[in-house]
Amino acid sequence: MDQTALFKLSYGVYICTSWDEGRPVGCIANSAMQITSAPATVAVSINRVNYTHKCIEETGHFALTVLGEKSDPKLIGTFGFRSSKDLDKFEGFGYNVRGKLPVLDDAIAYISCKVIGKMETPTHTVFLGEVLDCGNLKKGKPMTYAYYHEVLKGKTSVNAPTFIEDAPKGEKEVWVCDVCGYEYDGEIPFEALPDDWVCPLCGVGKEHFHRK
Amino acid sequence: MDQTALFKLSYGVYICTSWDEGRPVGCIANSAMQITSAPATVAVSINRVNYTHKCIEETGHFALTVLGEKSDPKLIGTFGFRSSKDLDKFEGFGYNVRGKLPVLDDAIAYISCKVIGKMETPTHTVFLGEVLDCGNLKKGKPMTYAYYHEVLKGKTSVNAPTFIEDAPKGEKEVWVCDVCGYEYDGEIPFEALPDDWVCPLCGVGKEHFHRK
Repeated sequence: MDQTALFKLSYGVYICTSWDEGRPVGCIANSAMQITSAPATVAVSINRVNYTHKCIEETGHFALTVLGEKSDPKLIGTFGFRSSKDLDKFEGFGYNVRGKLPVLDDAIAYISCKVIGKMETPTHTVFLGEVLDCGNLKKGKPMTYAYYHEVLKGKTSVNAPTFIEDAPKGEKEVWVCDVCGYEYDGEIPFEALPDDWVCPLCGVGKEHFHRK
Repeated sequence: MDQTALFKLSYGVYICTSWDEGRPVGCIANSAMQITSAPATVAVSINRVNYTHKCIEETGHFALTVLGEKSDPKLIGTFGFRSSKDLDKFEGFGYNVRGKLPVLDDAIAYISCKVIGKMETPTHTVFLGEVLDCGNLKKGKPMTYAYYHEVLKGKTSVNAPTFIEDAPKGEKEVWVCDVCGYEYDGEIPFEALPDDWVCPLCGVGKEHFHRK
């Protein structure tokens, strides 16, 4: 069984949001799909360890913000690799309430849903949402998971359905971002990078990197 | 509510297969995604009117054949717009039994599953499958739903989650394939095309086309 075959499934990149007693919360989701056309429903798979999972359970609502290829990659670093429990992930990013739910502005579309069903799996809950409101935002192509990995060189959160531990790399020196997992293996040695260099994915400083 | 926002979700193109008393059956699916990584599980959404749905219910097994950009578009015409009830869709296409299920050869990967859960929705069942076997086949990029629509100019089956009735087009004469819905609007008038011209998507002759 060659589990790399699972990488051949195609996904988009979404921020799945909800409310925590009036505070917006959210996390990155890839596993989201339309299920029925009339009524329009979508399903999203969320790991039960994610704080956003608890908030969707409590409010019975979620929204998907659909990221585009030109959406700020820092959104992925912030929403994909930190927890909403202690952090206001929305700080520094524009957002609006659309269809009663928080939606990031730097995106191409949104889909706001009421939970009408769910399926429990070993680690994740698949929430089925009836679409209450949806609309287009900025123009542009959807960011696909393949684009995120191939073009943005992004990593996968340990809580994602698609997480598989990396095989060891060759001898080239690689530095890894503690926050988002971005791997720096550029031509300039890491120590020689300027002090104000920041992670191109999530925006934290050099002090958040460690040698792999 | 602008339902075109739902088109911004990203999908691959898969053939979901099963057995009907020893006879291979299958249909096109777009809504498929990995749900958990350990154990590896995937979910697929299948319309209850599809014959393949009945076969998955009865056997408790399904496989996903992952199409690539170079897979024969006739696979989509045959598996997406006809019924397995009366037709051997596999005739003329190579396939092998992998992980106990029929898998088309002209593809980049396969994932064979045992059903371990399901979620009923108004028109579709979301089957949760534990991966029994998976592997890579031909090299190449996965065919995405966007590629299918933009490059292959493909249509959506009325049974698909993503189906929305087309808005009327302009004045250009368009001929539509009865089998797969492919729309011909080329520079050469349809009547002037040679008699042996066939639908570039599903391969049927001119007699299967009607003026839109």
